[in-house]
Amino acid sequence: MSKYWSDTIRNIKPYVPGEQPQDMKYIKLNTNENPYPPSPKVMEAIQNYDLRRLRLYPDNECNGVRKAAADYYGLEKSQVFVGNGSDEVLAFAFMAFFNPGSTILFPEISYSFYPVYCELFKINFKTVPLDEEFNIGTNGFFQPNNGIVIANPNAPTAKCMSTEQIISILEKNPENVVIIDEAYIDYGGESMMKYIKDYPNLLIISTFSKSRSLAGLRIGLAFGQVELIEGINRVKNSINSYTIDSIALKGAEAAFADEAYFQENRKRIIKTRSRVISALKKMNFQVTDSCANFLFIGHQQCPAATIFKELRNRGILVRYFNKPKIDNYLRVSIGSDEEMDEFLKAVNEIITDFI
Amino acid sequence: MSKYWSDTIRNIKPYVPGEQPQDMKYIKLNTNENPYPPSPKVMEAIQNYDLRRLRLYPDNECNGVRKAAADYYGLEKSQVFVGNGSDEVLAFAFMAFFNPGSTILFPEISYSFYPVYCELFKINFKTVPLDEEFNIGTNGFFQPNNGIVIANPNAPTAKCMSTEQIISILEKNPENVVIIDEAYIDYGGESMMKYIKDYPNLLIISTFSKSRSLAGLRIGLAFGQVELIEGINRVKNSINSYTIDSIALKGAEAAFADEAYFQENRKRIIKTRSRVISALKKMNFQVTDSCANFLFIGHQQCPAATIFKELRNRGILVRYFNKPKIDNYLRVSIGSDEEMDEFLKAVNEIITDFI
Repeated sequence: MSKYWSDTIRNIKPYVPGEQPQDMKYIKLNTNENPYPPSPKVMEAIQNYDLRRLRLYPDNECNGVRKAAADYYGLEKSQVFVGNGSDEVLAFAFMAFFNPGSTILFPEISYSFYPVYCELFKINFKTVPLDEEFNIGTNGFFQPNNGIVIANPNAPTAKCMSTEQIISILEKNPENVVIIDEAYIDYGGESMMKYIKDYPNLLIISTFSKSRSLAGLRIGLAFGQVELIEGINRVKNSINSYTIDSIALKGAEAAFADEAYFQENRKRIIKTRSRVISALKKMNFQVTDSCANFLFIGHQQCPAATIFKELRNRGILVRYFNKPKIDNYLRVSIGSDEEMDEFLKAVNEIITDFI
Repeated sequence: MSKYWSDTIRNIKPYVPGEQPQDMKYIKLNTNENPYPPSPKVMEAIQNYDLRRLRLYPDNECNGVRKAAADYYGLEKSQVFVGNGSDEVLAFAFMAFFNPGSTILFPEISYSFYPVYCELFKINFKTVPLDEEFNIGTNGFFQPNNGIVIANPNAPTAKCMSTEQIISILEKNPENVVIIDEAYIDYGGESMMKYIKDYPNLLIISTFSKSRSLAGLRIGLAFGQVELIEGINRVKNSINSYTIDSIALKGAEAAFADEAYFQENRKRIIKTRSRVISALKKMNFQVTDSCANFLFIGHQQCPAATIFKELRNRGILVRYFNKPKIDNYLRVSIGSDEEMDEFLKAVNEIITDFI
């Protein structure tokens, strides 16, 4: 604690990201990265960038990426915001739409960054309980509130809500912004993208870090009607006019250019996921129905903390959240088939040894 | 105005960056970019990055860049913060060290982003007047305050303060953080870097966008004692754990590797600056003593707004701030010798036509 720190940061508990060991010695199933490289078209676009131009500032409006994203989703460029990863976009959206002292709602178990933003920006929050199988109901979102945030699919539970459920939440809350965080939508959920024209209070957050294999490039997006996008831009332009470097912009522009690669990559992960779920169920794991590129698993006899530690000893990183209601679960990213075979083998050994 | 906007963004006037036309048809002397490309070592480091690794998140602690910067300036890695451009670093520092409702001081004429941060984070500010020649005195910073921000060299005036002056401000304000924004320090001012060990309240902000020719890469830095750096990290980790992409990190790591190139580039700009100042003075321009890679100029007969417009018509962009006390001045970046010859020729024509 320093006497120079502002009151806000004295008390805050910052978000703790999953480990990023730089030595490449681990099987990394802890941060929901894509096991496969980005599209060759993205890599080519980056290689073709003239590095001498780095002396100049980037396009602060990210016009190329916004145009590409708008075309892909059938929207206008003015309905797209591009930021430095979806976390930055979420932070900007919280500042743009939620007043300090007001109260927003999000699910009891969800992305653990949401309460951090609330603490930082002095927004109150109330959590909506899930049922025993981690399903998010709609009723909890029909109470008075000043804003709503829902990850769909939810993290770390991997479970989806239907578009009908989300529409009912949007319709019951016409005066408040409802943020749907679709970071993992490409792995099984149904996107709300086609409803942007119908709901002025709908803001969709998306990222290139998962299904586009570009966690290292730092590209997050927001989609919504023009007024919402303009609101986020007002925050951005009051913090940092240029949040994405020129090389990343070039790569990101090409991210939608290779639909075949994207679909193949996506399906490959879904296929691996099915296989791993079956294998884990045979070992008596509880596994939620995953719509994401990760699994949320718990074992009836062997504590999650033990499995976490033992996996780490064997060079396999997964995520363990030591929090109420989920402290006997692990979040496991879907890696390549080879990586998941190693994981299954290790987990089988650990459980056999324990029991 | 949207009913969905938070109170803060309804009223804010975001910062307006200089134009970044993407068509390359202009002589750009409006955003203080470096006319020369980055060091070949930076470009080589970027080219050698294995783009398949973009599937993974970057090193969120920016260890490589922090190590390189610490070694270069004779500091510890724990005394260095790396962010997405110095604007982001400034925004984080305002949140980390200045409480909402408290009052900070900065010069009456300075970087126009400072009041925007204050508005966004609800910090009050009081400006310290400059003398008629735009000198910043120290007395104004000896009044009660909760923090101080000084750009040295100052923008857009290009003028320097001495380290003695800044030390007296640090010593009179031991309870408050004093931010010295050294974005332009390599062009003539004296850096406060060697005083970090002596003053726990000193935070230095720096950037690769100017003297390192890397505006397009988005790298800003902060230097200070460990407690201050930890404070900024708390803000960063409550907004976005990964603000710099993996490619930019690789390039930035190499930014200090080529001292000869850096010195040559720096001296070349200083030499061009001297020549341009002489030529402008012959045309009856008032030119402040510049310690930066830009000039702050006004003409006794021809209004700055006219020169600005006429230059634009001739394809030359400079910066004009329509604000009290500086509305008859232009900020002109030092470009290459060829660019500055075009500028001088154009400005001479404009003035001759006007008079």
